[in-house]
Amino acid sequence: MKEVSYSKALSYFGKPSRVVLAICYDRKNERSNPIALGWKMQTSIQPPMVAISVGKTRYSHKLLMETGEFVLAVPGGDNAKEVLFCGTNSGRNIDKLRETNLTPLKAKFIKPDLIKECVVNLECKVSGYFDTGDHTIFAGEVLTSWISEEEKKVLISVGSEEGYQLLLEEKGYRLGVIRG
Amino acid sequence: MKEVSYSKALSYFGKPSRVVLAICYDRKNERSNPIALGWKMQTSIQPPMVAISVGKTRYSHKLLMETGEFVLAVPGGDNAKEVLFCGTNSGRNIDKLRETNLTPLKAKFIKPDLIKECVVNLECKVSGYFDTGDHTIFAGEVLTSWISEEEKKVLISVGSEEGYQLLLEEKGYRLGVIRG
Repeated sequence: MKEVSYSKALSYFGKPSRVVLAICYDRKNERSNPIALGWKMQTSIQPPMVAISVGKTRYSHKLLMETGEFVLAVPGGDNAKEVLFCGTNSGRNIDKLRETNLTPLKAKFIKPDLIKECVVNLECKVSGYFDTGDHTIFAGEVLTSWISEEEKKVLISVGSEEGYQLLLEEKGYRLGVIRG
Repeated sequence: MKEVSYSKALSYFGKPSRVVLAICYDRKNERSNPIALGWKMQTSIQPPMVAISVGKTRYSHKLLMETGEFVLAVPGGDNAKEVLFCGTNSGRNIDKLRETNLTPLKAKFIKPDLIKECVVNLECKVSGYFDTGDHTIFAGEVLTSWISEEEKKVLISVGSEEGYQLLLEEKGYRLGVIRG
């Protein structure tokens, strides 16, 4: 074993990893705001819960604190460009759904919209949050789940390993899908 | 979009996902105890932090509460059998490292051992924990990082997607590596 910097270790630990969108409702601008996230996990079986980690300076952090609701959506490989846009622009001054032409669908229990183009949409209610360094972990109970009727590959943040097809590389993002 | 059960949605959301080992120190039995985990994420850049979600009934949950330290290790494809063993046996009565022939190496800052066969080992100090349903999220600050000098593919919990090579399927586990 060789002692290395954390950033070096991350190139083995951090990727590949599925990219998701978290959609929060922006009351002031009366619109849903999607953010791209790499840091998420499941965290309970009963009740079903997921956790997301959101940077404290992000606009979505403020929205999550205000509203306590989010949709967790899994984009497909054909959404790479839109996900990059959502990950590199702030919703403070931009209507990201309109700019990206992603299609909002009404959720059943919560205010933020589902995204039609995504493979999975989970409606989540924040049950608690927790400070960790420069990010906050938000735990969300899954109220209901939706899947797309169209089969497609999920979008992945890829490293340098073989086996993945790189679709887009820009602004530090490397997005792709599994080969095969 | 079609409304489905959470377990159905999980087959799209939950996999593929990297499997890790968390190694805690068992003071009573004076040994390191590795547990297999699927639920983990990064959660801070500065300071570097990771989060793991551990079932409340697990022996490692008790050890984490007692000691506040863990090693987060990324196993390779050649460790599938050992990871299955660590995920399906309790350390209460078994010395998992001895049973699996995984090789412990002294960590630099904390008491639990690193695992020589793993691709990455992160030494982590618990900075806080947080109840979420039937699991607890433990946030850990990464004190230092180690990588193996041997290149190998990381172990992945695979679904039914193409592009992965299934190595082992047993007791509800489906473990594999990326093709290519």
